[in-house]
Amino acid sequence: MEQRNIEFFWDAASPYTYLAATQIEALAARAGAGLQWRPFLLGKVFEATGNSMPAAVPAKGKHLFCDVQRWARHYGVPVAFPKIFPVNSVLALRAGIAAGAQGKSAAFALAVMRAYWAEGADISQPASVSAAASAAGLDGAALLAQAQEQPVKDQLRANTEEAVRRGAFGAPTFFVGEQMFWGNDRLVLLEEFLRGKLAA
Amino acid sequence: MEQRNIEFFWDAASPYTYLAATQIEALAARAGAGLQWRPFLLGKVFEATGNSMPAAVPAKGKHLFCDVQRWARHYGVPVAFPKIFPVNSVLALRAGIAAGAQGKSAAFALAVMRAYWAEGADISQPASVSAAASAAGLDGAALLAQAQEQPVKDQLRANTEEAVRRGAFGAPTFFVGEQMFWGNDRLVLLEEFLRGKLAA
Repeated sequence: MEQRNIEFFWDAASPYTYLAATQIEALAARAGAGLQWRPFLLGKVFEATGNSMPAAVPAKGKHLFCDVQRWARHYGVPVAFPKIFPVNSVLALRAGIAAGAQGKSAAFALAVMRAYWAEGADISQPASVSAAASAAGLDGAALLAQAQEQPVKDQLRANTEEAVRRGAFGAPTFFVGEQMFWGNDRLVLLEEFLRGKLAA
Repeated sequence: MEQRNIEFFWDAASPYTYLAATQIEALAARAGAGLQWRPFLLGKVFEATGNSMPAAVPAKGKHLFCDVQRWARHYGVPVAFPKIFPVNSVLALRAGIAAGAQGKSAAFALAVMRAYWAEGADISQPASVSAAASAAGLDGAALLAQAQEQPVKDQLRANTEEAVRRGAFGAPTFFVGEQMFWGNDRLVLLEEFLRGKLAA
């Protein structure tokens, strides 16, 4: 059988994307699937689809961090509510595109999400993005410069538009071919699908 | 240790409530917890909290049944998209209150949700509610009459208002004391909490 590929659309501003990011590499390995990390801008997805962040409903916003903490305990990963929330993640996502061009998609994505969701960093700031780049084994200053290049900006926009065109309305979003899975809480279904346990 | 109790707030109009309902009794048994089935009116919860049904976002609505089908396959339970959706579930929920007064909460709730989510019944109609009552071992005509009594109507309203006051904004909603869990996709966290694996 041809190896299947997971496209993982991530935005560092999303807590459930952070949670999923901590699990997705092990999941792909268990299922024998490829994994492609694709930055996209969740705010633009919301604009395009009429969806909104959970905290737009006050009672949902009030419950959000309790729920995120439970998942973090379930997975055994650190979490701390950010000082700045929501955060402008455009720079971090552009840097994610540039990191991908150097084969460091996953390492950078994990570093920048851990910085924001567990270490109190304000990832809207160049210094935080540069530090995440260093943690991922990249040259921080060079990555910040690359993040400002037009083709990198265009790629982030194109990823976002493509995800919306394929049906995305939130984050994290996973595609396996035309099959879409939405949410950290769908990892169990994604894995079963990859193992052939769910019919398409 | 004192036995813990799960309060399961359900509305038959919600697909994720149906999915959770097929699993919750076994979960409670595994965890050694009590289980209380409490009808509430999701539409009023949405009104009170400013939340809305998933299908209010077209892309989300388009994805909904695919997702529901995957969960049904994951659990090994039947599902078929209803002919009438959304459905007016007020009569079914009032009947659920009346069934509870006769110790038949779970049997009636499961029967009426199975009728709607797997057997194509229009549960806004008295005949469908009566049939579900019979399937649950109740007198259908008597239950329909009881569903029209003022104390039954008042109890449904009170359940709904109580759930909102305690933080609910969607369905299914589970409480274990003051701890709230929202969604079929949180059953794994609910069970871990009951087993003492998640700190409060």
